[in-house]
Amino acid sequence: MSAHSPKTINRLKRIEGQVRGIIKMLEDERYCIDVLTQMQAVKSAMARAESEILKDHAAGCVNAAIQSGDETAQREKVAELVDLFDKLKR
Amino acid sequence: MSAHSPKTINRLKRIEGQVRGIIKMLEDERYCIDVLTQMQAVKSAMARAESEILKDHAAGCVNAAIQSGDETAQREKVAELVDLFDKLKR
Amino acid sequence: MSAHSPKTINRLKRIEGQVRGIIKMLEDERYCIDVLTQMQAVKSAMARAESEILKDHAAGCVNAAIQSGDETAQREKVAELVDLFDKLKR
Amino acid sequence: MSAHSPKTINRLKRIEGQVRGIIKMLEDERYCIDVLTQMQAVKSAMARAESEILKDHAAGCVNAAIQSGDETAQREKVAELVDLFDKLKR
Repeated sequence: MSAHSPKTINRLKRIEGQVRGIIKMLEDERYCIDVLTQMQAVKSAMARAESEILKDHAAGCVNAAIQSGDETAQREKVAELVDLFDKLKR
Repeated sequence: MSAHSPKTINRLKRIEGQVRGIIKMLEDERYCIDVLTQMQAVKSAMARAESEILKDHAAGCVNAAIQSGDETAQREKVAELVDLFDKLKR
Repeated sequence: MSAHSPKTINRLKRIEGQVRGIIKMLEDERYCIDVLTQMQAVKSAMARAESEILKDHAAGCVNAAIQSGDETAQREKVAELVDLFDKLKR
Repeated sequence: MSAHSPKTINRLKRIEGQVRGIIKMLEDERYCIDVLTQMQAVKSAMARAESEILKDHAAGCVNAAIQSGDETAQREKVAELVDLFDKLKR
């Protein structure tokens, strides 16, 4: 279990609102470039939320594995991060 | 005004649902790496929606400027695309 | 034929030098994180060069198609840009 | 010190060759879209090299910190990875 900060949850709720706003823009037949520009804003907000979750993960789950002294658990955490890197860069 | 396809609107509605799902994962204290992996899925869905809107824009608004023979309008469309490129790559 | 600016050519020559620098770092068994950080610098330099070439393309080739009044050529240019978008975002 | 694989070094040498090829395309006034397409190929090659170096880093330096049992060193490695994530996503 990973306790996520209210700050991150609120950030995702704002992103949900932004996506709803884009749907409204599409339904209102707003100009394509304005819609695409708003989508960049959502992607930037997602990137900030990712960074936040990642830092919390390092300070929480990964740190717990370090404190446990359990080498297997530690290697697992590192392998997960490297795997995530590849997905992030796609 | 730009008439956007129902397909694109539905795609954004699914993205909204995915974001809501991520909020639930955070509230359920789901493992960080699972949340981050789900966020990559949202970003891929956003990228596909972007491509769709861009193609519709080229076939619609930009094509209309071409058909109009109005050079100023055509240059404006091109400048908007180049500007969008820079935002997309950030 | 597209006349490219000396500024862009020099930018690519600096990138070539940066890549050579990374090869040296690898041969000198420099710390992985330092190598990866230097690779981010190369990617940022590539992004700036891309923007420059794109702007020159809009002002040159695309503008020539606009001035020609040739609708087929204009649509070709737009289709190329949209196609490039998809590659850029991958 | 980090011993980097010959495979990675060769990969970077091929990238250097690709960048030199782009410089030649610019000097030969090749069409902008062809140049930009070739630049995407360089970025993909860079991404593959990054993944390789990162995996080697996890298996090498990070693993050594795990085996050492030195919690401070382990936290340092994790902090470096998280910091690199932020740079990678920009």
